[in-house]
This record gives sequence, C-alpha cells and structure tokens, in this order.
Amino acid sequence: MTLNVGVIGVGMIGQEHINRLTNKLVGAKVVALSDVNARQAEETAAKLQGAKVYSTGEALIAAPEVQVVVVTSSGPTHEAYVLAAIKAGKLVFCEKPLATTAEACMRIVEAEIASGRHLVQVGFQRRYDKGYRALKKAIDDGVIGAPLMVHCAHRNPSVPEGYVSDMAIVDTFIHEIDALRWLINDDYVSAQVLVPRNTKHTHAKLDDPIIILLATKGGVRIDGEVFVNCRYGYDILCQVVGEEGVASLPEPESVLLRRDAKLSTTIMQDWKLRFIDSYDVELQDWIEAARAGKVNGPNAWDGYFAAVTADACLEAKRTGTVAPIVTPPRPAFYA
Amino acid sequence: MTLNVGVIGVGMIGQEHINRLTNKLVGAKVVALSDVNARQAEETAAKLQGAKVYSTGEALIAAPEVQVVVVTSSGPTHEAYVLAAIKAGKLVFCEKPLATTAEACMRIVEAEIASGRHLVQVGFQRRYDKGYRALKKAIDDGVIGAPLMVHCAHRNPSVPEGYVSDMAIVDTFIHEIDALRWLINDDYVSAQVLVPRNTKHTHAKLDDPIIILLATKGGVRIDGEVFVNCRYGYDILCQVVGEEGVASLPEPESVLLRRDAKLSTTIMQDWKLRFIDSYDVELQDWIEAARAGKVNGPNAWDGYFAAVTADACLEAKRTGTVAPIVTPPRPAFYA
Amino acid sequence: MTLNVGVIGVGMIGQEHINRLTNKLVGAKVVALSDVNARQAEETAAKLQGAKVYSTGEALIAAPEVQVVVVTSSGPTHEAYVLAAIKAGKLVFCEKPLATTAEACMRIVEAEIASGRHLVQVGFQRRYDKGYRALKKAIDDGVIGAPLMVHCAHRNPSVPEGYVSDMAIVDTFIHEIDALRWLINDDYVSAQVLVPRNTKHTHAKLDDPIIILLATKGGVRIDGEVFVNCRYGYDILCQVVGEEGVASLPEPESVLLRRDAKLSTTIMQDWKLRFIDSYDVELQDWIEAARAGKVNGPNAWDGYFAAVTADACLEAKRTGTVAPIVTPPRPAFYA
Amino acid sequence: MTLNVGVIGVGMIGQEHINRLTNKLVGAKVVALSDVNARQAEETAAKLQGAKVYSTGEALIAAPEVQVVVVTSSGPTHEAYVLAAIKAGKLVFCEKPLATTAEACMRIVEAEIASGRHLVQVGFQRRYDKGYRALKKAIDDGVIGAPLMVHCAHRNPSVPEGYVSDMAIVDTFIHEIDALRWLINDDYVSAQVLVPRNTKHTHAKLDDPIIILLATKGGVRIDGEVFVNCRYGYDILCQVVGEEGVASLPEPESVLLRRDAKLSTTIMQDWKLRFIDSYDVELQDWIEAARAGKVNGPNAWDGYFAAVTADACLEAKRTGTVAPIVTPPRPAFYA
Repeated sequence: MTLNVGVIGVGMIGQEHINRLTNKLVGAKVVALSDVNARQAEETAAKLQGAKVYSTGEALIAAPEVQVVVVTSSGPTHEAYVLAAIKAGKLVFCEKPLATTAEACMRIVEAEIASGRHLVQVGFQRRYDKGYRALKKAIDDGVIGAPLMVHCAHRNPSVPEGYVSDMAIVDTFIHEIDALRWLINDDYVSAQVLVPRNTKHTHAKLDDPIIILLATKGGVRIDGEVFVNCRYGYDILCQVVGEEGVASLPEPESVLLRRDAKLSTTIMQDWKLRFIDSYDVELQDWIEAARAGKVNGPNAWDGYFAAVTADACLEAKRTGTVAPIVTPPRPAFYA
Repeated sequence: MTLNVGVIGVGMIGQEHINRLTNKLVGAKVVALSDVNARQAEETAAKLQGAKVYSTGEALIAAPEVQVVVVTSSGPTHEAYVLAAIKAGKLVFCEKPLATTAEACMRIVEAEIASGRHLVQVGFQRRYDKGYRALKKAIDDGVIGAPLMVHCAHRNPSVPEGYVSDMAIVDTFIHEIDALRWLINDDYVSAQVLVPRNTKHTHAKLDDPIIILLATKGGVRIDGEVFVNCRYGYDILCQVVGEEGVASLPEPESVLLRRDAKLSTTIMQDWKLRFIDSYDVELQDWIEAARAGKVNGPNAWDGYFAAVTADACLEAKRTGTVAPIVTPPRPAFYA
Repeated sequence: MTLNVGVIGVGMIGQEHINRLTNKLVGAKVVALSDVNARQAEETAAKLQGAKVYSTGEALIAAPEVQVVVVTSSGPTHEAYVLAAIKAGKLVFCEKPLATTAEACMRIVEAEIASGRHLVQVGFQRRYDKGYRALKKAIDDGVIGAPLMVHCAHRNPSVPEGYVSDMAIVDTFIHEIDALRWLINDDYVSAQVLVPRNTKHTHAKLDDPIIILLATKGGVRIDGEVFVNCRYGYDILCQVVGEEGVASLPEPESVLLRRDAKLSTTIMQDWKLRFIDSYDVELQDWIEAARAGKVNGPNAWDGYFAAVTADACLEAKRTGTVAPIVTPPRPAFYA
Repeated sequence: MTLNVGVIGVGMIGQEHINRLTNKLVGAKVVALSDVNARQAEETAAKLQGAKVYSTGEALIAAPEVQVVVVTSSGPTHEAYVLAAIKAGKLVFCEKPLATTAEACMRIVEAEIASGRHLVQVGFQRRYDKGYRALKKAIDDGVIGAPLMVHCAHRNPSVPEGYVSDMAIVDTFIHEIDALRWLINDDYVSAQVLVPRNTKHTHAKLDDPIIILLATKGGVRIDGEVFVNCRYGYDILCQVVGEEGVASLPEPESVLLRRDAKLSTTIMQDWKLRFIDSYDVELQDWIEAARAGKVNGPNAWDGYFAAVTADACLEAKRTGTVAPIVTPPRPAFYA
C-alpha cells in the first residue's frame, strides 16, 4: 500500500520533502499540492506524475485522494492547516514550528485530544539524527547513570542580515529545546539567558552569542550556547554529564588529514549537510507509522512545550531574570 | 518507471538484497526468484507481492518480465548466470566474487566485450561506503598529492572454524584488493605475503594474522594486514600517504564516552553494521544506473583484476616469494 | 650562585617542595626548616645535608643564611609568615591560598606595596602547566580572536567525607578562578552559582555538582562545572570560544588503545599526576626569577583577587543571586 | 655528591648536553672539555665555572678529576674514546652511533666484557620518551597480549641536500631499530626494504620514502616507513598489534582548535621539540645510575645490535632481497 500524500507549501523545505517522498523514500506518493504561489505549485506538479494542485490548503486536506498531509508552508499558516487536518481526521506532518504562539499550539493540542486520535507530528528532525540517537541510547541504557547536567552549543558560521535576536531562540535553539527534553526524558521549569559581549561579526539587530540556561523538573541543569556568527563552521556540541560518566554527541565522520602541520578533520559549513540524513529517516519513519495509522515522533504536546519554553527564553532575555516555564500538566493523552 | 528485478539465490545475502529492493530502495521491484532450494524460493516469493518462482536461474534470466538480474547464489554458480544474462542482453548485478577463477572472470569479460554493451556490475560495496568515498574525494581533489604508500588493516574479532587460510585473501582481503585500486586509480604488478607468528586465538587451518604487500604500476607500495581473530572488534583502517600529506579513512561515528577511567568510542563487532549503509547506496546506485541502461560501479574487468590479484597473493604466500600480477592490457572497452 | 631556601611547613606539600628543591630542580638548596611539629622538622632536616631547624617561622625568616622563603604551612598561618618575609625584605613563595580571607590578602598587598619591592608569589601552579600554556599562547597569538565565552569543568573521581560544599569553591574552583583570569587577561565582575540535583555519590554536607557562572569586565561569560564525585576520573576541561575560533585545553598524552570493543585513551585518577610537571616548572621558574631578584608568577594581587572572587561565589551560592565582585582598582604597583 | 663529567666534542649536540648538565639536571658538573676545534672548547669552557680544556679526548679521559665521560664528538671518533674510557674504568655515555661499523661496536663489546664492568651507555633517547614509555608499559603489563606486528612511521618535513639514501637507515630508522627491540623485548632475524616511487620533493641522491620490513626471533613482523620529505611535519607513529588488542604511541599534547572549517591539533615541525624532554630524562637517569656506579640504559650490546641491523637493512635495500641479521648469541654479560 502506497500512502497518498498532500503537501501544503512548495517553498524550499517543501521541495525537499517532495523530492524525498518521490525519489528517496518508499511507501508514499505525492498526489496533491497547494501553495499561496499557485504557479509554483503548478510547476512542481508538472514534474510529478499525477499530482493535482489545489487552490487552498483546506481544499487539499479535504480532497478524498489525500490520505495524509505534510505542512511546509510559512509558520503563521501552520495552525489553520493542522487544525483542518485534525478536523478531517487525517495524519499530518507539520514542519517546525507547530504554530507561532504557545496559545495556537495549545489550540492544536486541545483539538487533537478532542478528536480522540493521535494525528499530529512536528518536524523536529534531530530526534532522527544518528548521533543523537546513539547518545540517547547510551543515556537510556544507563551507561552514564542519571543525567545531572547538559553542556551544549549550536554554532553557525554566519547568518544573513535578516536574522535578528529572537531567531537565535525561536529558530535556532528551538532544536535544542526539543531535542534535550527528549534526550534526557525530562521537562523544563525555568530559563535564564546570559548575554556575553557581542562578536564583532554580528550586526546591529542580533545579540550573538548568547547562553541559555534551563533547569528541569528533575533538577538537571542545561547550559546552551548559541553562536551564529562563529565563523569556523556549523558545529553542534552536546555533552551529557551523568552520575557515572559523561557522554558526548559523536563528531560527524570525516577523513583524518595530516597536512600543513595539522592533524585535522573537516567541520561542515552547512547545516543542511549536517542533518540531511535525519530528514530522510524522520520522514520515512513518519510514513511507516502513518501506514499503520500511528504517530511515533514528536507530537503536538512537544510542539506546545517547545513554544512555551522558547517564550520563556525570550522573556528571560528581555528581563535579565529567571523566567518560569509554566504549562498545564501533561495530558494523559500524551503520556 | 519501476525496474523489474529477478533475484537468483535467496540465501542470506539474497534475502538482504530482496529486502532492500522491496522495502528500502526506490525504483525497483522484485518480480522473479530462483534458488537451488526451491522451497526457500517459494517461501520468499510468498512474502512478496506477485513475485514468480523459476526453477532455474537460466529460466529466470530468460523470463520476459525480468528486466535486470541480481546474482546472489553461491560463488561457483556465478559464471553461468552472468554469462546467461550477458547473452540475454540484461544488466546483471553479481555479488562478489564475479567468478571463482580468473579464467572464468576472463570468459565473462570476453563475453561482455563481444556483446558490445556494458551489462555487468560486481558487488564490491566498499566503493559505496561514505568513509571510503570521502577518502577517495580527498585523494582525487589532490589534498594529499600523488599517493606513494597505503597502510591498511582488515580486522575481525573472530572467525568460525570453517574459515581457513585462503579465505583471508579471497574472502576478506579481496575487499581491499578492489577498493585500493579504485581509491588510488592504479593497478597492481606484484604481491608478497608475510606471515607473522600466529595468534594463539587462531585454529590449525588458519594462518592469522598475515600481511600482504602489493606494488602498483605507478610505484605505490601497499601493506595490508589481515587479522581475523583480533578479538577487540571489526576494524577497518586505511592510511594513504601522499607527496603533500596523509589521509586516513574516517573512524565510524560513535558517542564519546568518559567512564571508568577511559575516554572512549565504541568499535563495532559486526562487519554487517560497519558497511550496512554502503549496501543500500550500492544497490540504489545500480538501480538508477540500470534505469538509464548503464553500469556505473565495479565492472567485469574489476572482478577479473581482483581474481588475478587474489591468485597472486595465494601463490606469493605459498611460495614465500614475490608473485607477479600479470594480466592482458586493460581492454579499451573498460577504459 | 645557589639560592638558600628556608621552608616553613614540612607537611605533604612541604615535603614535595623540599624534594623538588633538593633532587629535581637546579639553583636552590634547602638550608632551613620550621614546622609546628618540631620533630617532623628535625626528621626532615636529618635527611638533608646541613639544613637547620628553627623553632618558629619568624625565626627562620630572620635567619641570615635564609635568602628566600617557601611557605607551605597550613592556610591560616600564611598571612603572618608572608608579612614577616615582606618585612624582612625576602622573596617568598606562598602556597595557595595567599591568606584565608580577602582582608588578610589585602593586608599583604598593602604591605608589599609599602615595601616598594615585588616579593610575593602565590602557588597557582596551573599557569605553569604545559597544556594551559599552549592554550594561553594560542589565545595571546590571536588564533581564536577575542575571547567571548569559556566553558570549563573540574572533575574529581571522589572526595573524602571531610570535603564540604564551600571547598568546591575555595579549594577546587579556586584553580579555575586564578587560571581563567590569566588565560584571557581579564577580571571578573560578578558571580552566580547554579545547583543541579546532587549526584547520589555525594554526602550530606556537599552539594555536588555545582556550576559557577562568572562575568568579566570585558564581557566574557564563563561557565565552570565543579563535580568532585564524577566517578570516572580526574578531568580538567577548558574550551575558550573566540570571535574567530575555539580552542580547548589539550587532552593529556595517553596510549591509544583498541581493546574490548573500545578505542580509548586513559583518564587519570589522581590530580597529582595531572599537574605534577607544572609544580616543577613553577618552582624552577620561581628560583630563576628569585636569583634575579624578581617575581614572575602570580602575585599578591592575584591572591587577593582570587580570594574576593571565591567569596563572591560563596555568597552567590548562599543567596541564589548574582553577586558582584568588587575590588579597589588594581594598584599601579601590579600593573 | 656531584659527579664530575668530562665532555668530548662541543659541537651542537655537545653544547646541548653541556647545557643540560649545567643548567637543567641535578647531580653533575662539567669539569673537563675537549674538541678537535680547540678554540671552540676554550670558548665553551670560558662560560662554565672551572672547566678545564684538554687537547685530546684521551687526555680528558685520563684526567683524574674526570669521573665519567660523555662522548659527543663525530661518529668516526666514538670507538677510540669509548675504548679509552673502558680502559680507564670510567663510565661513558656515548651518543649514537656507538661506532660506525658493526665490527667496531663488537670491539667495544669485547673490551667491556673483558673489563668485567658495565661502563657504556649509548644515546638512544627514545627509550626515555614519555610516550614510548607509556606504550612499553602497556605492552609489558599485558594489556594487548603478546605482540604480533608493529606498524610504524618516521616522517620529517624535509631534509637538507647532504642527507643521502643510507642516512634514512643509519641516522633516521636507527631510532626505530633500537626502540622497537626494546619495546617488544625481541631481536631481529631478517630485514627487507621496499622502495616505493620517490616523492617529487626528494633529490637525486635520496630514495624517499622507503619501507623497512623486519622479522624477529619471536615471529613478530615489523613494517617501518621512513619518509623524510613528507612536507607536513615531524611525525612519529607506532602501532603495536597484540593477541588481545592494539596499542599506539600517544599523539603529543596539543591544543584542540576549531577554526577555518577544521577541527585540528598541531603537528610539530622540529624533531628536537618532539623528543626534547627525553634527552633530559635520559641524561638525568644516566647521572643517577652513574652515581651508583651502574648503567641502566641502552648498552654496548644494544649499540652493536643496532649496527648489525642497520647493515642488514642497507644490504637488503642494495640487493632487493631479504637479508639475514646474524649476530653471535647475546653474551651472558648483557643478559
């Protein structure tokens, strides 16, 4: 059985997911497309065999041939499409963020609970990265004992002018926000943000670097550096300190070179290369779960929790104080 | 267009390739099976939608719905099936070895040349390993200058009783034989084998470890250790020394652990895990080339060259001398 | 010219320094000893050729044959001996701490300034560690650009029952307090302490681990983990993030081992082994400077600054807030 | 008791040892000098307090105030001085080579045996390198089980024009020749030399790189690369493969740098820096043994064995065959 997928949003990430579904993954077929830019949707459809273009996301969701939905449109549109998919009882994969406000995420959570079915997966792809999975396995297997601290860093060589301070949290650190909760099986209770002197390579509207401190319900302390003009490369570090030992995220495989007085490996420059495999694994896993009518990956509650945490980080940075991270108790539905 | 594949041989490696073609790769479908064990072929077919069982490999090859052939039967049967595929004008992927003697390999080479079409690919999967590809790219990009020496090792934790001395060359080092030629774009001219004291962990019929020395046409010297009872893990090392620098095969990604007075990464125990991704890449690449009517990977000449080299290594070991590696000039067909 | 050294305090660290001065270093000779335990002083003197025992540190300092003084007595006695040495116009090497309160350190600073001569060196030996020196050289050479953040960790496998919470700061982190100022050529302006959940391997009177956050005048942010029951080894990590790159303290040299499915190096268990060479370098450097009538190493102001910083860390931990680190301006004398 | 040392030869290495004995090590004093260049000897003596200059090495050896002798004159003069020291019954430290021919080395061996006392130490400093010592300890402790193979490399960035082919063996690989015997407690029985294509960076009189193959009495196989125009740095690699695991020489400590898309450590350019500490340890150890009237380090037999091995390597290279390494049985005197 091949799964019929409708994709809403055929921009950069949409194109990539369409390519994956069509040429790299098995068990799915893109049968419907929609985009605010109708022409781009038409052009994309022309390259796919038998994909139909719908004028609205809602129409696509309602189409009988569409079994499952992928939402890769712009962030502000996510809420409406995900709610429509829930209403239609169709499984939906929504790229991060689930929605642009915590309130909107909560509306999705409530709608999904009301529907009685698990339908929503959020595109937090790090959970599908080989390195993170190996790290999580070591932790879950008890290799380092109970986690006590996490030290991590998220570094980009540079960012464009349009990248402003809030994005360091809501677009960049959001990946750590989701991945670390999952990694150590814990929830956050407070956030604090430290602002070192800016690098000279940043611009007027961007504080860079920053350090985010998170405390968890279980008493774990996390420090996370975000440094998006670090110059030297795209580099993701994560060290988990436990009661019996310390485990770190693997360095990506690289040829070991002895040249020019250096023993070196290569650090990637492009985040897409760093996590490219994880997108394939993520979407293939979603397809397989979907074919069984299930959701395995990060769910609406995870999307909501990430949004609340990001809001707290923003507030903590603005006020210079420790901001509490407050949510209702996790619904039994997501236990 | 989905490629219709016929698979001859449904043993362990056959099952794995069938699973890949069916569940992991795109663009192909297993439509025909054959095995000396007819019952196993039937059982396998029962799990696949619409695969037909043929009583002989030849019948499968002749079947009109079979567009391309995968040969994963036992080594001694390879020659006949590959020749039949060539005769039928069908693309054929043959697991290593291409054939069990150099003469048989040469018959395949001659048949393919006579057919006027490139039809045969041999299953040397290391060329598709991410690490080897990165190493080859560094070499091809001139990062280390012209290669002068290669130091390598092929280690297994242990082997079963049935694994005897010749297998260290024809089953184990054969991978290096093919991969190193490809890596440094060169051919071998002689072989020598050194036999250190045996490890106490070997058995009566197996010299372990051994060291194989190869010289190339271009004057490169290769030393290759084969140690199949090394105890500690499955470990593949390769260091290429060039005029401007030295490049080594990447260590596989692994969580970095600080525990029990050690800073450590994990060494795999199972060769299948080490190269598992490369099989997928190899077969997917073959499918894509096949859909375009081409062969991209290791060809019949490569299979022949590997056989001649392995024979020379065996002779060198038996005689304790340097054995020449003599072949006719590479046919223009394979230029 | 051999320097005549008087040593006050012949306990563990005193014995080590006496051994160094006598058997490992050149240019100095221990000629006088003193200890509250007179018998231990006599026994030590008996092993040295021609060392005289004095009943008090003050008497030793006053002795005409004593040219320079080493203070390795218990912390609370340091102030009096250092002040006496200053009064006598003799160079004095005082093991850390310079004195047990910031006020006492300031009295030493004032006395030294009043004396008009640089006489006091404090025993912060990390500045003499090969690894730290290489790291500082990289920073000073501009290899990573201007520092923005420092991430560090100070881990011990375990501590005895007598080691209580304050010691994590005043005995353990004190090394980072001095070394990091020196490393990045900056001073601290505030401290904050985070207290994760305790490891189950700690005891009732010790919060373990803790994280100390320091901000510097130059806007650098430092996070320092202290974890003294980390179980796995004595491990000192330090990563300095600059505007152009990131430099980390070298891992100590260790045989690289492939065994038991692990690729590993050894992590030391004993802090004495980790920094043993640095003590030799430190004291040899002091002797050479002393022979030239100078002080090269960490001075009284450094001892004072470390004491003020440690006090602020203790206060920050007690109050759970950010504690300012306030000192008078650095006297021109120490510019 | 300070040892009175006479130094014969005040060239580069002589100056370094004089400096060590005078300024860095304890327990010895240079009291006598001699050199074919009398003026240089006088100039050197002028800088030392109370060192007397002798017109010949023999006169220096005979001088009553000279207790022990250091020979750092040119290689061809070693034999005569060492024999004279033996005749005088004085301990002598002779820089490598012990003598320039195996026969001359044997005459020293015979003279020392005839004298009935252990007097001669040869300057093979690698045995005193921290990394080699750690590697030897791992082997001796049985961590990797019985050794079966050794893979090693000795690389220099470049050599001057005067460095010709034989020197790759007698000046460069000679260090491995001595160190590996000591490392694995074994003796060599044969040598073979492989000559890859020359690097374009070599000159007309130098085959570079070469590979030396040694077999030991115990059946261990050694392959050693010598590559003295490798361009990228001074790099010493050594991997010992045992029945239970594999141990490699530590990489020298180095700051870990993330910069310019590379994760790197620094490779040294200068062999003197690489082994500088080992010279201090070697000579200090010799002084301490000498004060006890003993020889701890590499002895005359080791010097002889190295000379015989180097001769066999030269012959193997010249003839292109396997050259036997034949010596009389090790005399009981050196057991």
